[in-house]
Amino acid sequence: MTLTIGERLDPEIERRTPTGTIRVGVIGYGYWGPNLVRNFAEVPGSQMVAVSDLSAQRLAEVAARYPSLTTTTDFRDVLADPTIDAIIIATPVRTHFDLAMQALQAGKHVLVEKPMAETTQQGQLLVETARQHQRVLMVDHTFVYTGAVRKIKELVTGERLGQLYYYDSVRVNLGLVQHDVNVLWDLAVHDLSIMDYVLAQEPYAVAATGAAHIPGKPVNTAYLTCFFPDNLLAHFHVNWLAPVKIRRTLIGGDRQMIVYDDLEPSEKIKIYDKGITLNGNANPDKAHELLIGYRAGDMWAPQLPMTEGLRVEAMHFLDCIRTGERPVSDGVAGLRVLRILEAASVSLEHGGRPVELSPLEVA
Amino acid sequence: MTLTIGERLDPEIERRTPTGTIRVGVIGYGYWGPNLVRNFAEVPGSQMVAVSDLSAQRLAEVAARYPSLTTTTDFRDVLADPTIDAIIIATPVRTHFDLAMQALQAGKHVLVEKPMAETTQQGQLLVETARQHQRVLMVDHTFVYTGAVRKIKELVTGERLGQLYYYDSVRVNLGLVQHDVNVLWDLAVHDLSIMDYVLAQEPYAVAATGAAHIPGKPVNTAYLTCFFPDNLLAHFHVNWLAPVKIRRTLIGGDRQMIVYDDLEPSEKIKIYDKGITLNGNANPDKAHELLIGYRAGDMWAPQLPMTEGLRVEAMHFLDCIRTGERPVSDGVAGLRVLRILEAASVSLEHGGRPVELSPLEVA
Amino acid sequence: MTLTIGERLDPEIERRTPTGTIRVGVIGYGYWGPNLVRNFAEVPGSQMVAVSDLSAQRLAEVAARYPSLTTTTDFRDVLADPTIDAIIIATPVRTHFDLAMQALQAGKHVLVEKPMAETTQQGQLLVETARQHQRVLMVDHTFVYTGAVRKIKELVTGERLGQLYYYDSVRVNLGLVQHDVNVLWDLAVHDLSIMDYVLAQEPYAVAATGAAHIPGKPVNTAYLTCFFPDNLLAHFHVNWLAPVKIRRTLIGGDRQMIVYDDLEPSEKIKIYDKGITLNGNANPDKAHELLIGYRAGDMWAPQLPMTEGLRVEAMHFLDCIRTGERPVSDGVAGLRVLRILEAASVSLEHGGRPVELSPLEVA
Amino acid sequence: MTLTIGERLDPEIERRTPTGTIRVGVIGYGYWGPNLVRNFAEVPGSQMVAVSDLSAQRLAEVAARYPSLTTTTDFRDVLADPTIDAIIIATPVRTHFDLAMQALQAGKHVLVEKPMAETTQQGQLLVETARQHQRVLMVDHTFVYTGAVRKIKELVTGERLGQLYYYDSVRVNLGLVQHDVNVLWDLAVHDLSIMDYVLAQEPYAVAATGAAHIPGKPVNTAYLTCFFPDNLLAHFHVNWLAPVKIRRTLIGGDRQMIVYDDLEPSEKIKIYDKGITLNGNANPDKAHELLIGYRAGDMWAPQLPMTEGLRVEAMHFLDCIRTGERPVSDGVAGLRVLRILEAASVSLEHGGRPVELSPLEVA
Repeated sequence: MTLTIGERLDPEIERRTPTGTIRVGVIGYGYWGPNLVRNFAEVPGSQMVAVSDLSAQRLAEVAARYPSLTTTTDFRDVLADPTIDAIIIATPVRTHFDLAMQALQAGKHVLVEKPMAETTQQGQLLVETARQHQRVLMVDHTFVYTGAVRKIKELVTGERLGQLYYYDSVRVNLGLVQHDVNVLWDLAVHDLSIMDYVLAQEPYAVAATGAAHIPGKPVNTAYLTCFFPDNLLAHFHVNWLAPVKIRRTLIGGDRQMIVYDDLEPSEKIKIYDKGITLNGNANPDKAHELLIGYRAGDMWAPQLPMTEGLRVEAMHFLDCIRTGERPVSDGVAGLRVLRILEAASVSLEHGGRPVELSPLEVA
Repeated sequence: MTLTIGERLDPEIERRTPTGTIRVGVIGYGYWGPNLVRNFAEVPGSQMVAVSDLSAQRLAEVAARYPSLTTTTDFRDVLADPTIDAIIIATPVRTHFDLAMQALQAGKHVLVEKPMAETTQQGQLLVETARQHQRVLMVDHTFVYTGAVRKIKELVTGERLGQLYYYDSVRVNLGLVQHDVNVLWDLAVHDLSIMDYVLAQEPYAVAATGAAHIPGKPVNTAYLTCFFPDNLLAHFHVNWLAPVKIRRTLIGGDRQMIVYDDLEPSEKIKIYDKGITLNGNANPDKAHELLIGYRAGDMWAPQLPMTEGLRVEAMHFLDCIRTGERPVSDGVAGLRVLRILEAASVSLEHGGRPVELSPLEVA
Repeated sequence: MTLTIGERLDPEIERRTPTGTIRVGVIGYGYWGPNLVRNFAEVPGSQMVAVSDLSAQRLAEVAARYPSLTTTTDFRDVLADPTIDAIIIATPVRTHFDLAMQALQAGKHVLVEKPMAETTQQGQLLVETARQHQRVLMVDHTFVYTGAVRKIKELVTGERLGQLYYYDSVRVNLGLVQHDVNVLWDLAVHDLSIMDYVLAQEPYAVAATGAAHIPGKPVNTAYLTCFFPDNLLAHFHVNWLAPVKIRRTLIGGDRQMIVYDDLEPSEKIKIYDKGITLNGNANPDKAHELLIGYRAGDMWAPQLPMTEGLRVEAMHFLDCIRTGERPVSDGVAGLRVLRILEAASVSLEHGGRPVELSPLEVA
Repeated sequence: MTLTIGERLDPEIERRTPTGTIRVGVIGYGYWGPNLVRNFAEVPGSQMVAVSDLSAQRLAEVAARYPSLTTTTDFRDVLADPTIDAIIIATPVRTHFDLAMQALQAGKHVLVEKPMAETTQQGQLLVETARQHQRVLMVDHTFVYTGAVRKIKELVTGERLGQLYYYDSVRVNLGLVQHDVNVLWDLAVHDLSIMDYVLAQEPYAVAATGAAHIPGKPVNTAYLTCFFPDNLLAHFHVNWLAPVKIRRTLIGGDRQMIVYDDLEPSEKIKIYDKGITLNGNANPDKAHELLIGYRAGDMWAPQLPMTEGLRVEAMHFLDCIRTGERPVSDGVAGLRVLRILEAASVSLEHGGRPVELSPLEVA
């Protein structure tokens, strides 16, 4: 199944009869692992087989909830299980590459947390390895599978917004300060994955500024600009030390504009029929000057499908394994996001100096 | 009167008996001029004498409302009137320098719209000229005189927030696209003047990114970072083409944090007793690592004085003329803001490359 | 001009060439009077001639602003001026009847503040007197002329909402405690005038509860229910002593529902495609039971005309004088609102006992 | 443990060492049952033993999640189990009385869903039976145990608000239309239980209006006024057919006022230092008239304990069983709420006619 634009994915998925159960193992049962286990335990067509984690206590928790599961503190047990078809990796970022590589080499399909690796080079190796072993490599860009983001994609692709002007995102709150990755790798990665899906094009340069306020910890407040052709600009504000929670994206086009507020319980997306219009100038002396008109029209908030994004994603992963289709958030999508993060870190270290990105070439 | 921190300005101002009426002329009666005329007509101690504007229609409007005023299409009539003590300049940016310079040289006190000039060099000339002629030179940084911003200044100076981490401001809406100045000079100038007043320190570098989407018009969407010592970071997002109106500033410190939302009718400032705490690590093997604690306490929204900022500013200008005290938003404050804007424009032209600022030296 | 449903009133009004200027006098220049004077001074086709008020200071204010006006502390001067065509009455409620009656008997057209009188009987006498003298009698139901309420009327009349279920209104804040009228007569009168216009039907009974918390002052917190045929229910919550300002009306139908929030700067009206659907029951044993389905669809916020309601109202009043057409908020509309207020006061005095209303008969 | 005012309940509860495990059975595993089972399975000092429900599917669900539980479709199996100490009843309202009575007579402690029964008489019988058998009878007034409501109780009891003026509550959304009870019994019961706890006094009369819009279903939109001594007024607005979700309570006193918005994620309670002040009149002719001053001060949102209300309630129930103390929401509290609902239904049937309540007498 390809997740094409505007498709009402959910009803179809629910109707489909699964053929052949896919057996799943999960490595890492920390913050996000429980959500992954729950969804793969509940969707049709998959069976949760094993979970590994370094913490015996967490393993006890998952065992209590899912008594039929095998649990282990050694991830190699999961990789070595020949009955397991697919591995989900939900461990700290620094372990993603090694675990995903071993899983692919063991012939498993892989769904790995974002960011998929620590460097672009690692990401490319994973993509190549997946190709060689003809296995599905998917990155857990969860937001891409939510009803809200799929609706945005539909609106942008359907040219409802017209020529795109900007993509502006804010993701801040008083959040957990990470130890190994900075706030761009922790928070902006969500928004970069959404932007990558919605815009379907790559920036030619990025510039990032930020600051680290806690001794010994990485940058906790950061701003990232991505430059695209045709004056399209994307910007990301992320912060672990904000007093209020904000999750808001503005997307402006020359015809309509979107406000996406992920904290709104029911009206996450609002489409504004607002903008400017350019007209020829009636004054012959100023014929070269365009007259700007301002247009303020209706606002519209579409009803969104309510299926949990992670559930849609889980079914999509299983589908891609069965059919061989390319996931919407495949390894290359993960790689594109990784390249931006890597360039952003370079810019950050140079006080905001813009860093150019060469076009991504994947063999 | 000096506008010191935390002072409840308003009641005192209202009580004071004016001694000697200051006669005022206004050059420019466009968007902002009517507010200036109204306030100087209403505050005690000043008399509105003359208004000049290029538009006969606008002059008819002001004459209808204030029949005792003299109106003229030639600003030189206002400058030449020997009975006028003070000149207020509310014209397009490109004319600020010439008009302010002529007014100072004619021996008038000057209140000029922001930004005070087009270049730092012009700004410095104005500051020097005012000093030579011993005249008050004040820049119309209106927000600095509002109850909300004075309360923020009080909180920051009183160390309620502790060590400052960041200053983050958003000022966007579907607004009038200017022809001669970009969106930083039009919108961020407000926030830079607030930041200059609240932080009372100068950035050592700035970096700005942005895009121009309308043929023949300046940059309409922009992001500006200001770098300060001790990892203090300020950031500004301004946009003329946003579908919703946002006027929100976050100020984070290690003890408390502020959200300033200028669109809130009554609770413009909220102070959050939130943040992180750093403790020594009980684990001797990790004694060098600080343990991070998260603290979420009460929120508090102080009642703010309701006097219009421009009214407070008008009285302050008159006071400075009478007493010779330095205005809170004096020419040097205007110059500091101008230097940031000028450097931002350079950065913008170089795709976000950071631009260093040498310390401001005023003779 | 008749204000028919859905009509885009504003552009047409602005285009129309006035024929014959109508000369206007205003009695009462307190809280609302300045708005009335301003609008009648600005709309085409009318000329503000005279203002009376008991306060010499207020008269000085209006004279300063409108030097060509005649001012007087004796309202009889205004009534006696034979060049005046129309009288606007913006005085305390207890004087409405006497002033309006004298104005009508002096052959003037009358626009009177709401509520139009203190008793139904007084209201009926005014309506009859206007008819006898063939003069326009209009009540200042300002909200009826706003873009928001006209849009609601259009949606309700166009059956966009389907069968109406309820009309629920809240109008509370820390407001001025009145001395002579209770909070229903002061605040609910706004909402009753809106309801009367939107529903275009009369309740058959009302019930009101409330409390007076301030010694010697009238009821300051009240709740009013209006009962209509076909289970349509209207309810009003008004309060002078609330800590926050709320101006929100919910209107529910079996097809769509409206939320009208008058404090929203731009999206005052939101239309929800939400509700329940009733279906026959497939279970033959329960064939008499309808199955309830729940429907949650899109939300839509229409762009509203921005013309000030009072300006539209002023032009409508002048139009009715010229053409003899009946105003949308004519004396009979004022009378319908008055009857509800009068019955509500009776219910209030009896602890909420419902009071029936006989159908209004106007000769 | 008695839940006294202002006490920081949570930390103490967590520290306490339980002595003797209380064995719990649950009757009814529909909408709310899973939350009850989860909490009693997790709090220290209790053991979930058995669950009964008419639906085999639901029993399978709970068995899968809690493999050690006994499940049965016959509630009598639960009542007959001599090892069970306490029974929780989470079934439809019409079964509450019979089940609670049988459980008490079987010597079990009982926690029953609200409303506790269908009539006041039934409620009184339950209270008497619990007393005779010396068993704890508690009603599941969950909100009373939330951090937000406990903070409100603390503020009201501590006289922070001063003399109380009003209690105004709105609980509306597009919700499940019940078949057997009207919207007051389904939704207002929550707010009545909060009001009963916070005000700690009984109304002397109630008046209710409402309408039933769906054929064959009970009243779905209703308004209820409760009259208290000293002009204290409480009002409740509940609606199953509203387009938006509102959960907001205003509580006004002569010193401070509270806004409690249960949909706010973090600042559920805001305390406003707002109100009026009454002063003697300086004018000797009007010495009997008090002058009204208006006071607008700071707003304050206290940090609230985050423990789930139902968890606090579960621990309180276990504590009362162990110590014999009276629960905060004991049978008599349930009875007080029931009396109001019963009187409201009578008023509703008579079009809003007020119904008096005699003081509750419990032997």
